[in-house]
Amino acid sequence: DFQLALLEVKSAFGADQDSFESMVLNGIINWSPAVQSILTEGLLHAKQVKNSARTPLVSVLLEGPVGSGKTALAVKMALQAQEAGFPFVRLVSAEKLVGMTEAAKSSAIAKAFDDSYKSPLSVIIIDEIERLLDYAPIGPRFSNSVLQTLLVLAKRLPPTGRKLLIIATTSHANVVNSLGLEDAFDVRLTVPNLNKMDQVRTVLKEIDAFTEQEWRDYDKYTRTLPFFSTANPHIWIGIKKLLMLIEMAAQDESSKVVKFLSSLQDACGQMDTLG
Amino acid sequence: DFQLALLEVKSAFGADQDSFESMVLNGIINWSPAVQSILTEGLLHAKQVKNSARTPLVSVLLEGPVGSGKTALAVKMALQAQEAGFPFVRLVSAEKLVGMTEAAKSSAIAKAFDDSYKSPLSVIIIDEIERLLDYAPIGPRFSNSVLQTLLVLAKRLPPTGRKLLIIATTSHANVVNSLGLEDAFDVRLTVPNLNKMDQVRTVLKEIDAFTEQEWRDYDKYTRTLPFFSTANPHIWIGIKKLLMLIEMAAQDESSKVVKFLSSLQDACGQMDTLG
Amino acid sequence: DFQLALLEVKSAFGADQDSFESMVLNGIINWSPAVQSILTEGLLHAKQVKNSARTPLVSVLLEGPVGSGKTALAVKMALQAQEAGFPFVRLVSAEKLVGMTEAAKSSAIAKAFDDSYKSPLSVIIIDEIERLLDYAPIGPRFSNSVLQTLLVLAKRLPPTGRKLLIIATTSHANVVNSLGLEDAFDVRLTVPNLNKMDQVRTVLKEIDAFTEQEWRDYDKYTRTLPFFSTANPHIWIGIKKLLMLIEMAAQDESSKVVKFLSSLQDACGQMDTLG
Amino acid sequence: DFQLALLEVKSAFGADQDSFESMVLNGIINWSPAVQSILTEGLLHAKQVKNSARTPLVSVLLEGPVGSGKTALAVKMALQAQEAGFPFVRLVSAEKLVGMTEAAKSSAIAKAFDDSYKSPLSVIIIDEIERLLDYAPIGPRFSNSVLQTLLVLAKRLPPTGRKLLIIATTSHANVVNSLGLEDAFDVRLTVPNLNKMDQVRTVLKEIDAFTEQEWRDYDKYTRTLPFFSTANPHIWIGIKKLLMLIEMAAQDESSKVVKFLSSLQDACGQMDTLG
Amino acid sequence: DFQLALLEVKSAFGADQDSFESMVLNGIINWSPAVQSILTEGLLHAKQVKNSARTPLVSVLLEGPVGSGKTALAVKMALQAQEAGFPFVRLVSAEKLVGMTEAAKSSAIAKAFDDSYKSPLSVIIIDEIERLLDYAPIGPRFSNSVLQTLLVLAKRLPPTGRKLLIIATTSHANVVNSLGLEDAFDVRLTVPNLNKMDQVRTVLKEIDAFTEQEWRDYDKYTRTLPFFSTANPHIWIGIKKLLMLIEMAAQDESSKVVKFLSSLQDACGQMDTLG
Amino acid sequence: DFQLALLEVKSAFGADQDSFESMVLNGIINWSPAVQSILTEGLLHAKQVKNSARTPLVSVLLEGPVGSGKTALAVKMALQAQEAGFPFVRLVSAEKLVGMTEAAKSSAIAKAFDDSYKSPLSVIIIDEIERLLDYAPIGPRFSNSVLQTLLVLAKRLPPTGRKLLIIATTSHANVVNSLGLEDAFDVRLTVPNLNKMDQVRTVLKEIDAFTEQEWRDYDKYTRTLPFFSTANPHIWIGIKKLLMLIEMAAQDESSKVVKFLSSLQDACGQMDTLG
Ligand SMILES: Nc1ncnc2c1ncn2[C@@H]1O[C@H](COP(=O)(O)OP(=O)(O)OP(=O)(O)O)[C@@H](O)[C@H]1O
Ligand SMILES: Nc1ncnc2c1ncn2[C@@H]1O[C@H](COP(=O)(O)OP(=O)(O)OP(=O)(O)O)[C@@H](O)[C@H]1O
Ligand SMILES: Nc1ncnc2c1ncn2[C@@H]1O[C@H](COP(=O)(O)OP(=O)(O)OP(=O)(O)O)[C@@H](O)[C@H]1O
Ligand SMILES: Nc1ncnc2c1ncn2[C@@H]1O[C@H](COP(=O)(O)OP(=O)(O)OP(=O)(O)O)[C@@H](O)[C@H]1O
Ligand SMILES: Nc1ncnc2c1ncn2[C@@H]1O[C@H](COP(=O)(O)OP(=O)(O)OP(=O)(O)O)[C@@H](O)[C@H]1O
Ligand SMILES: Nc1ncnc2c1ncn2[C@@H]1O[C@H](COP(=O)(O)OP(=O)(O)OP(=O)(O)O)[C@@H](O)[C@H]1O
Ligand SMILES: [Mg+2]
Ligand SMILES: [Mg+2]
Ligand SMILES: [Mg+2]
Ligand SMILES: [Mg+2]
Ligand SMILES: [Mg+2]
Ligand SMILES: [Mg+2]
Repeated sequence: DFQLALLEVKSAFGADQDSFESMVLNGIINWSPAVQSILTEGLLHAKQVKNSARTPLVSVLLEGPVGSGKTALAVKMALQAQEAGFPFVRLVSAEKLVGMTEAAKSSAIAKAFDDSYKSPLSVIIIDEIERLLDYAPIGPRFSNSVLQTLLVLAKRLPPTGRKLLIIATTSHANVVNSLGLEDAFDVRLTVPNLNKMDQVRTVLKEIDAFTEQEWRDYDKYTRTLPFFSTANPHIWIGIKKLLMLIEMAAQDESSKVVKFLSSLQDACGQMDTLG
Repeated sequence: DFQLALLEVKSAFGADQDSFESMVLNGIINWSPAVQSILTEGLLHAKQVKNSARTPLVSVLLEGPVGSGKTALAVKMALQAQEAGFPFVRLVSAEKLVGMTEAAKSSAIAKAFDDSYKSPLSVIIIDEIERLLDYAPIGPRFSNSVLQTLLVLAKRLPPTGRKLLIIATTSHANVVNSLGLEDAFDVRLTVPNLNKMDQVRTVLKEIDAFTEQEWRDYDKYTRTLPFFSTANPHIWIGIKKLLMLIEMAAQDESSKVVKFLSSLQDACGQMDTLG
Repeated sequence: DFQLALLEVKSAFGADQDSFESMVLNGIINWSPAVQSILTEGLLHAKQVKNSARTPLVSVLLEGPVGSGKTALAVKMALQAQEAGFPFVRLVSAEKLVGMTEAAKSSAIAKAFDDSYKSPLSVIIIDEIERLLDYAPIGPRFSNSVLQTLLVLAKRLPPTGRKLLIIATTSHANVVNSLGLEDAFDVRLTVPNLNKMDQVRTVLKEIDAFTEQEWRDYDKYTRTLPFFSTANPHIWIGIKKLLMLIEMAAQDESSKVVKFLSSLQDACGQMDTLG
Repeated sequence: DFQLALLEVKSAFGADQDSFESMVLNGIINWSPAVQSILTEGLLHAKQVKNSARTPLVSVLLEGPVGSGKTALAVKMALQAQEAGFPFVRLVSAEKLVGMTEAAKSSAIAKAFDDSYKSPLSVIIIDEIERLLDYAPIGPRFSNSVLQTLLVLAKRLPPTGRKLLIIATTSHANVVNSLGLEDAFDVRLTVPNLNKMDQVRTVLKEIDAFTEQEWRDYDKYTRTLPFFSTANPHIWIGIKKLLMLIEMAAQDESSKVVKFLSSLQDACGQMDTLG
Repeated sequence: DFQLALLEVKSAFGADQDSFESMVLNGIINWSPAVQSILTEGLLHAKQVKNSARTPLVSVLLEGPVGSGKTALAVKMALQAQEAGFPFVRLVSAEKLVGMTEAAKSSAIAKAFDDSYKSPLSVIIIDEIERLLDYAPIGPRFSNSVLQTLLVLAKRLPPTGRKLLIIATTSHANVVNSLGLEDAFDVRLTVPNLNKMDQVRTVLKEIDAFTEQEWRDYDKYTRTLPFFSTANPHIWIGIKKLLMLIEMAAQDESSKVVKFLSSLQDACGQMDTLG
Repeated sequence: DFQLALLEVKSAFGADQDSFESMVLNGIINWSPAVQSILTEGLLHAKQVKNSARTPLVSVLLEGPVGSGKTALAVKMALQAQEAGFPFVRLVSAEKLVGMTEAAKSSAIAKAFDDSYKSPLSVIIIDEIERLLDYAPIGPRFSNSVLQTLLVLAKRLPPTGRKLLIIATTSHANVVNSLGLEDAFDVRLTVPNLNKMDQVRTVLKEIDAFTEQEWRDYDKYTRTLPFFSTANPHIWIGIKKLLMLIEMAAQDESSKVVKFLSSLQDACGQMDTLG
């Protein structure tokens, strides 16, 4: 019945495969060497799980600001592991658990782990821990039942002969720490925001945001306006928000570049005006 | 069965169409350029949703004082989008959910989103977030279950090929922020109160509040009484309350103008007496 | 079926009519011009609801000390409106909801509103908001479910063609405010306590409390004792408590006047002794 | 069916009659004029209820230290009223409600009131309010459901033609006040502790505590030992505890008097030793 | 059916008899006159209950440090009463209620009292009040339902003709007080820890802990080492812990005495080293 | 039916035997004399339980930092006891109770104790008390129902003729204390972290971590780099984490030693860089 288990595993995987695509909707743009090095480290841990007899379980936490690209990177890591021979990949995400009771959420999470034990090599993505925990900053409130489930499952060794890589994400690292989840992860990786106009330029180029004329305007503005000078340390934006700003500006055909730069400046919390 | 789904969508819409009218009971009076620019920006985002492949979901938050006209403007925006080709418009409002349990409210909200996914282009209005959350300032208390549902749904991408514009309103922007909902919206627009006697005059004119004689009295009083001088910065009233004051005064046939100005002054929190 | 609805409305009203009487058990004594002006303003708002197309819903809050006569005045206002053509009058009061769960209370309140929508013109009295809310000062504790129901219903427009006057009472105005209910009412009226011996005398006269001899004693004492001099600002008593004191004193046939004045002084929190 | 109702009332009363006896197990000893004056005032209010048309409901609160005799006095008052023509007397006490849910307790209390409405003249004793409220000082915790029930029922007028006297007791007057129950009672009476050796002597005499020889010892000790001198203000004990001390001492045949005085001194919190 | 009731009573008693033995597993060692005087006072109160008509209920609280022997002494007292003619003895202890809901616990306790009313003379032991209350110091948390049950039952008079002695134990006297249980007991007795090496010696002798050679060592060490000098006030240990230390040391055949003294010193919180 | 009970016991044990192996996955490495002395003391208490008539129950608490090897040592102790003649060994661990309600957890724990009473000699391991308690530092929150179950069961004597050794573990000794569990254990043992490079070396040798060449590099680096000098007091790592670091480094074939030392330094919270 291992064949059967594998089949089940495959179909479970297939079910998720679809949603994986929408989670990396805009691909992974290589706007900084940090992006590649996160993916490399992820692959290394997949190999450790596969090769070491002493550590059949490794858990990785991706932490970073809202919209920095954590979910996309976690999914990408899991797909890499899949290529490296992990037949089972499962995404545990609050999006699928909307409206469930605490008990149902806990049990859905536990089921993902139990399912994974059917495959010799598995990856489980736990996306947005704070959302799975129903965390609210006022109180604060959270589901202790889900918390305890995660505290136990993140450390529970798979049965003999099974191996598991856990990839979790959070934009509330402090919450994760203060709930005692910090000891539950073997490795922590930080996903950065963009903080240089060069990086912004790389993204704009990559997605072919402007016409030639617009590029000339863009270069003129960014060279002359003080806000965009290399000296200004105020650039601080996640890749997700940046892509949103580009698309908003794109609606304004006549003044796309000015609109983009102006809203980028707003988003970075600045009040200087454009010419 | 897409035909069927569309039918369902249409009828659901039809059901709401009726209540939309009572929500803009007194029309949209153009008492300031700000009114129009809010509606324009709303239309722009509807177009972004329709046109951009990279942002199939855009969420807008209308925030402003109690009675400033948020609900009327949100509904107006949705009707504009409807004209621009969004066949599905759904209003999510506490008025329909009175007395439901937290779980039932969460699930009614989730259903609105699931329904919207049947249409290629949809608008969802989420009116008075604080009321959906059962927010009470003492405690404070709120439905964490509804909060988590909103936190997830406001960011969840629709299925491939579906697109969604979310328009939410609140008069408790600080509550929305402190609950972590602030990161859930791509755009925030502020709906202002009236703060000039000129704007009040525009509204009175628009709804034909006075007879010619009354207008003469009105102009005399507002010109001579210090409270109504342009220098006085104390005018601060929402359009909804203003319309209420006009109607109250109207019962007092003999001294309509004095009654109106006196109660306007009270409402703006002033203690000067009229002649 | 409008006929039918009306019938239902009539009978519902009939059922309440009875309890209305006991709520104004001792009539409305005109001990101050303030009493009449509260009733007048109430009638004005009833007419506004009836006449204005722009304000199909008006909500009035009667606030005042414990025992100041709020319930009696609210009921009187509703009876005035009834005479002015409102066929539906409903009393929502904690006395009828004793021992219900929060959910049952919320739903009973919502039902009163739904019932009112069957009549073109309706009045709903919401007596003692703090009691409907199960408010307890320690905690503080209250039914958030009932609070949310009131917050929504007090502002929800009746269906097209229906009009509604809401009259609510509270002796905990500060609680009502701190729960955010203050924005839910269009008009606030304050019911005063008696604060002059002249007003007390008016009440005693009205209910024929004393024999001629007793009146002579009464006048002697109140003229000579410093506590009852017009200069003393300590008179502060609600009409309900005053009537209770009069009846207690009446048991003491031999020293009715002394007993009354002595207990009045106690009730006003004074320690001077009578001769 | 009034006959029937009365029958029911009688039997309900009969059921309680029995337990009334054990609640005044040791009779009412007249150790101070205050004892009689409390009973007199109780009777006065019974007559007011019976005679006045304006106050069909009067509520009295007996407050005093633990063991001061509140329950016995409340029951005595009710029995007086019974003799004065009140056919219905009901005791509401936590002793009968042990282990019930909050809802069941609320409903049992409400039932006592509903039952009382079947009789034209009724007395309801509400013994130990704090216990009915499940009050615990840590938290503090209490049953808000029972509290709201009491807040409403203590003020709800009986139906037309019915009259009701409420007698409640508490040894936690501060709790009663801070829960807002203080406005629910028309009259408050304070039950004192014994605070003079003369009063203690009256009790000892009344129950024939000592033999002649023992009385001689008693008088010698109390005259000579400073603790029992009239100047010492430390005597402070409830009648219930005093009776307990007398019975304990009675076991010690040989040194009854010394044992009694020694334990009285301990109970009054003193450390002086007896000869 | 009194015969029947008595039978039931007997069998209920029989059931407990067994567990009574294990609760005095190591007998009552007479290590101090205080031990005997506690038992004597217990017997005195049993007689009071039996003989006095005025106090059919007496309640005694045994308070003392963890492991001081409270449970053993309470059981011993109950067995004394049994010999003195109380046919019904019942032990109420958290050990039998493990895992029950609050309501089930309350009702089990109430049942013990109701059962006791079937016998003319009864003893109820309430062991470890804080455990019955599910008390946890963080919060603090406790079962208010059990608390209220105890508050009522500890003071409720048995039905006419029935008499009851209550013996309760606690090692958290402060908790008992702060929950208002302190007024529920008529008598409080304190169970002490051992605080002199002489007392320790009495225990060691009584249970024949050492061989002759070991006694010589013991006497040498305790005479010479400063920690065990009569001047040192640090001896402070409960009889239960002391017996545990003796048994642990007994495993270490070769150095029993040194091991015992060393661990006694540790247990008393001291850091001096043995030679 | 004792035979039957024993059979049951055996099979229950057999079921656990399997998971015991994975809990000592990497054996017990003798990196310090402390390791052996903990195991020795464990065996001593097993013998005490077996031999002493006065202490049929002994409870031991293993406390130590996260990852210090508590679970492995507790299991090892239990296996020692098994060899010494305890036929029943049961592991109570949160891993098996994931997602259960508080009541179900309490009852599973109680069942383990009831099962153990079927065998004359039993060992129960209670692994990670804080996890069984569903402890969360924010609040803090915990299952009071499980806490009370543990508080009672850890002290409840087994039935006559049965004997029990309890071995519990925790990495939150302060939590255990502040919940009042500290009085529930007879013995406390501390499991240390590694704090010397010599100890690290012993572990590396034991598991044959490096080739000869790598050992040469290792010795060079640790001798020359200041961080690894014997004077540096910053070495502080649990055996579990240390094994994880070794396996991670092993993936990096080319620079295994540098990688290991670098990550060891990081784990010990240091920022010095390697050559
Ligand atoms: N280098 C990159 N890293 C991550 N995402 C990228 C990168 N380049 C482009 N993207 C795109 O940016 C988006 C990142 O969104 P994603 O949902 O992963 O962010 P997030 O940090 O998970 O946001 P949130 O905090 O809201 O959960 C995706 O559409 C992804 O395709
Ligand atoms: N420019 C305007 N903007 C908004 N509403 C307007 C405008 N002109 C007239 N109105 C009318 O004013 C009223 C605004 O009420 P609305 O319920 O939208 O206010 P709101 O801010 O949502 O109030 P609340 O804070 O109580 O929810 C509506 O009747 C609407 O028809
Ligand atoms: N001018 C008056 N206004 C109000 N009530 C009056 C007046 N004159 C006499 N009364 C009588 O006084 C009593 C007022 O009691 P009512 O219950 O209305 O007071 P209340 O303020 O609602 O008390 P509570 O704060 O306890 O709810 C009624 O019996 C009413 O008939
Ligand atoms: N003058 C008196 N007043 C009240 N009780 C008296 C008096 N004289 C004798 N007694 C007896 O004293 C006892 C008083 O006990 P009671 O239960 O009434 O006190 P309590 O104040 O209600 O106590 P608790 O605070 O515990 O409820 C009764 O047995 C009663 O018969
Ligand atoms: N003088 C004594 N008093 C009480 N117990 C004694 C005495 N002498 C010997 N013992 C024995 O000491 C042990 C006391 O344990 P017991 O359980 O009664 O203590 P405890 O104070 O109830 O403990 P805990 O605080 O844990 O409930 C029993 O085994 C008892 O037989
Ligand atoms: N001397 C030792 N003591 C304990 N464990 C050792 C020892 N030597 C090697 N090990 C291995 O180290 C690991 C210790 O892990 P274990 O789960 O017991 O730690 P823990 O302290 O219980 O961790 P946690 O705090 O996460 O529960 C096991 O794989 C065990 O085989
Ligand atoms: Mg994400
Ligand atoms: Mg609105
Ligand atoms: Mg009222
Ligand atoms: Mg009493
Ligand atoms: Mg005990
Ligand atoms: Mg462990």
